[in-house]
Amino acid sequence: MADDKKLTTRKADFSAWYNEVVLRAELADYSPVRGCMVIRPDGYGIWERMQRTLDDMFKETGHRNAYFPLFIPQSFLNKEAEHVEGFAPETAVVTHGGGKLLEEPLVVRPTSETIIYAMFAKWVQSYRDLPLLINQWANVVRWEMRTRLFLRTLEFLWQEGHTAHATHDEAEEEARKMLGVYRDFMEGYMAMPVITGQKSNSERFAGALRTYSCEAMMQDNKALQAGTSHNLGQNFSKAFELKFQTESGDEAFAWNTSWGVSTRLVGGLVMTHGDDKGLRVPPLLAPTEIVIVPIWRTDEDKARVLEAAHRLKASLGAWERREPNRLRVHLDARDNMKPGAKYYEWELRGVPLRLELGPRDVDSNQCVLVRRDTGTKETVSLDTVGEDAEVLLEKMQDEMLTAARDRREANSIRGEISWERFKEVMEGDGAFVYAGWCGGEECEQQIKEETKATIRVLPDEEFRSSEPMKHCLKCGKTSTVEALWAKAY
Amino acid sequence: MADDKKLTTRKADFSAWYNEVVLRAELADYSPVRGCMVIRPDGYGIWERMQRTLDDMFKETGHRNAYFPLFIPQSFLNKEAEHVEGFAPETAVVTHGGGKLLEEPLVVRPTSETIIYAMFAKWVQSYRDLPLLINQWANVVRWEMRTRLFLRTLEFLWQEGHTAHATHDEAEEEARKMLGVYRDFMEGYMAMPVITGQKSNSERFAGALRTYSCEAMMQDNKALQAGTSHNLGQNFSKAFELKFQTESGDEAFAWNTSWGVSTRLVGGLVMTHGDDKGLRVPPLLAPTEIVIVPIWRTDEDKARVLEAAHRLKASLGAWERREPNRLRVHLDARDNMKPGAKYYEWELRGVPLRLELGPRDVDSNQCVLVRRDTGTKETVSLDTVGEDAEVLLEKMQDEMLTAARDRREANSIRGEISWERFKEVMEGDGAFVYAGWCGGEECEQQIKEETKATIRVLPDEEFRSSEPMKHCLKCGKTSTVEALWAKAY
Repeated sequence: MADDKKLTTRKADFSAWYNEVVLRAELADYSPVRGCMVIRPDGYGIWERMQRTLDDMFKETGHRNAYFPLFIPQSFLNKEAEHVEGFAPETAVVTHGGGKLLEEPLVVRPTSETIIYAMFAKWVQSYRDLPLLINQWANVVRWEMRTRLFLRTLEFLWQEGHTAHATHDEAEEEARKMLGVYRDFMEGYMAMPVITGQKSNSERFAGALRTYSCEAMMQDNKALQAGTSHNLGQNFSKAFELKFQTESGDEAFAWNTSWGVSTRLVGGLVMTHGDDKGLRVPPLLAPTEIVIVPIWRTDEDKARVLEAAHRLKASLGAWERREPNRLRVHLDARDNMKPGAKYYEWELRGVPLRLELGPRDVDSNQCVLVRRDTGTKETVSLDTVGEDAEVLLEKMQDEMLTAARDRREANSIRGEISWERFKEVMEGDGAFVYAGWCGGEECEQQIKEETKATIRVLPDEEFRSSEPMKHCLKCGKTSTVEALWAKAY
Repeated sequence: MADDKKLTTRKADFSAWYNEVVLRAELADYSPVRGCMVIRPDGYGIWERMQRTLDDMFKETGHRNAYFPLFIPQSFLNKEAEHVEGFAPETAVVTHGGGKLLEEPLVVRPTSETIIYAMFAKWVQSYRDLPLLINQWANVVRWEMRTRLFLRTLEFLWQEGHTAHATHDEAEEEARKMLGVYRDFMEGYMAMPVITGQKSNSERFAGALRTYSCEAMMQDNKALQAGTSHNLGQNFSKAFELKFQTESGDEAFAWNTSWGVSTRLVGGLVMTHGDDKGLRVPPLLAPTEIVIVPIWRTDEDKARVLEAAHRLKASLGAWERREPNRLRVHLDARDNMKPGAKYYEWELRGVPLRLELGPRDVDSNQCVLVRRDTGTKETVSLDTVGEDAEVLLEKMQDEMLTAARDRREANSIRGEISWERFKEVMEGDGAFVYAGWCGGEECEQQIKEETKATIRVLPDEEFRSSEPMKHCLKCGKTSTVEALWAKAY
C-alpha cells in the first residue's frame, strides 16, 4: 500500500527520491541479506516484459537459450589471467557442501565465460558447428560493498549471451549486432536513448579484446552503463582449448563474444522517466497500461458506475491490437479509498493512462483519459475509447523517448572545452561532455581522480561532433579520439 | 551431433538407456562441477515451453511473480525446527565474500520458505492484504550425493509458489487447487498421467502440515514424484511473525502454502515417452513439431526439392491455429547427410512429425507425414498438409497420454495382495501396488527396508480401489487407509 507522505523531490535529493520511488511504487524492497534485494511483483512485472521482448529479439537473431551451473570451480576462474584479476576480489565462495569442507572451493558465478567456454570446447569440433549462438537467463553474484536497489546489488538477474565464431570479423560483427539489439530495445521499448561506442582500455571487460557499451543519461546528468557487448577475441578459447577444424582441415581457436543486460535496466527506467509524483512506465513495458478509476457518491451511483466499469474493462481487455496483445487494463474497484487517493497511488506506480468514469460520464456515454506523462486530460466517447487509448499510448511511448533525448541533449556539451570549465561542470550539475583525448591513460586517470568523471565511451560516428576535436581536454596535446565524459553509476 | 551407435534398449538397461537419450538427444550434458548439469538448447527449449505454460496457468489463478535472494542467513533456516532438520544437511554454504570471512554464513537456498515468509511478514498488515499469492522461478541447490541428469542434480531450476491466507480452509483450498493445476499440466501438456493424493507423515515436506503430490509411473515401473503442494499451516507464520489484523480487529497468524515443480519434469517426460529409438516429445511441448527432410539424388532435383521445401516451411510456419501459435517447423537442408541419417537423428531427438519431400512428391503435389510415436506414414496433398499435420499432432498428443495411462494401469496391482507376492513384485519388474495400510510408521518403515518400496501417496478418492482394503499389507491388521506403494526415483 502506498504511503501518503509526499515524495522527496528530484531536485532536493535525487538519490533519496530514487529510493523512495522504488520502495513506495513497490518495485523492490530491502532484504535481510546485506546487499540483496527482493524484486516485488510490480518491479518483476516490468522485468518480465523486458525479458520477453529481449528474448524474442535474441531468438530472431538466431540465438538459443541454455543453462549452465551456478557454481564455478576456483581453478576455472584462474585460467584467464585478466579475467581472474577483474572478478576474483568480488566473488562469493562456497567452501562447505553437505556438511563437509570441499576439496576445491566453488565460486558463485559473477559471470559465466569460464564455465561456458569449457563446455563449448566439448561441443565444437568442426567449422560446421560454428557459429554457436547461446544465451542464458540467470542470477549472478558480485560482492559489492556499496549497493543500491536495482543499480548495484550483490545478486542480480541478467542475461548473458555467449557465442563462438570461426573468424575475428564474424565475432566483431556479432558483438556489434547485439549492441544494436540492445540499443533498439532501450530506445524502442524503454524510451531511454543511449549513446553507443567503444570503452577505453581501462574500462574494458576483464578478458575482452574490445568492449562496446550503451550509455544512458539519468535525470541527475549521470551516466548509466545500460548494456555491454564484448569481442573476447581468442583469450578464452585459448584458455579453454576451444578449437575447431577449419574447412581446409587446419586446427584453429574459435573467436568469442559475450553480452549482457541486467535488472539494472529497471533502475535506469525509473531514473530516466520518474517525476516528483513517482514512477512513469513507458506503455510497452507497463504491466498495466490503463487503470480504470470509477467515481461515485451514492450507493445507487456506485452500482451503475461499477457495472459500466466492469463492462469497459472487459471490452478494453479484449481490444484487438496490431500485435497479439490486448490492452492491459486494471479496474480499481476498492471501496475503502476515495478517487483522489487512488489517482495519487496510480501516479506513484506509474500506470501510463488513467480512465476516470463517474455517473455523469456513464449517462453521456463518455469517460476521461488522463496521461501520466503530461497530465493532460481528454474526454472521449465510450464507443471509441479503445482506439483513443491505443493512439494515446503510442504517442506517449514516442514522446517519452523524445523528451528523454531532448533532456540529454540539453545537458550535453560539445566542442572544445577548457579544463577549468570541465571541472566546474562536473562539480556542478554534471553533463555528458564530448571532448578531445590524447589517448593517454595518464590523462584519463587524472581526470577521474580530480572530477570523478570517466570516459563512458569513445562514441560511435553518429554521436561524434561534426568537427574533429583538436586538443586533449587534460594535457592540451593533440587529440587522437573524441571521448564522452560523465560521472556514472 | 548425434552419434551413430545404437542406443542401449530400455529392456537391457533402463538407466543406461535414459542417460544415453538425454546425452545424445542433446537435452543436457555433464558439467565440470560435480552433480551439476548443463541444460543444452534442445532440453532448455522443452523447459521453456513448460515454464511458459505453467506461468500462464499460475497467472490465470491469480498469482504474480517476484524474486527473492539466492542467499539465506543460516539463522533463518534455524527458525522452523522441522525445516532445518530436513534441509540443513544438504546445504551449500558461502563462508567468504569479497575475500573476507563472513560474520554469519549464508546458505544457498535449498527452498525459500524462510526468506519469503520473513518478507511477507513485512508486507502483510491487514486481512485486506490477503490472500497474498506469489510465485518465483529460480535455481536452488541441494547437496545430493548421488545425482542423475534432470532427476536429481545439485542445482536445479524450479518454480516455488508461496501464499498467505486468512484461514486454514483457504490455504487448504489453495494447496489443493495448485495440485490440480499441476495435474492438468502434466496430463494435458506432458501427456504424463499422474496419481494424486496426500503423502504419509514420514514423507511430508519438512515444516508442512500436509503434503500433496502428483506421482507418475516411468517405463521401468518406478514412480517419479513430479510435483508437490504443501499446506504449511501456521508453522512458518509463527516462526516469522507473519501476523495480520482480522476483519473484526483481532490479531492472527496467517496460513501458508507452497508448491513446486522443477526441471526434473524433463526427465519425467523422457522416461514416460522415450523408446528404443530415442526421445518422443508430446507435440504441445515440442520446440519443433515438424521437421522437413528433403530428398534428392541429382543436383537438378536438389534445386527444385529445396525450393519447394522452403516454400512449404514458410507456409506451414505461417499456418494459423486456434491459439496464437504457428506450427513450429524446421527444414533440415544439410547437404552432407543422407536422408536416412537425418531420419535417424530426428527420431533420436523426438520431433513429433517428419515430413518427407522428394522429387516425385513435388511433381505430384504431395508429401509423406511420418508420426514419431507410432511410425505410421501418410501421403497427403501439399494443399492440405497444414490441416493434416495439425490433426495428426492433436491426435498424437491425446494418444500419447492414453498409451501412457494404459501402460501404467497394465502395471498396477489392485486388491488384496499377500506380503510374499508384494516382495516378489518389487524384486521383479516393480509395479504401482494399491494396498491396505494399518497407518503405522513401523510397517511403513519395514516395507521400505525390505523392498525399497515407499508409500507414494494415500491416493485421492478417484484413484482408490472400488472396495475398501481390509488388511494392512505388512502386519495383516485392519487397514485404516489405502496406500499406493512403489519404488521411486
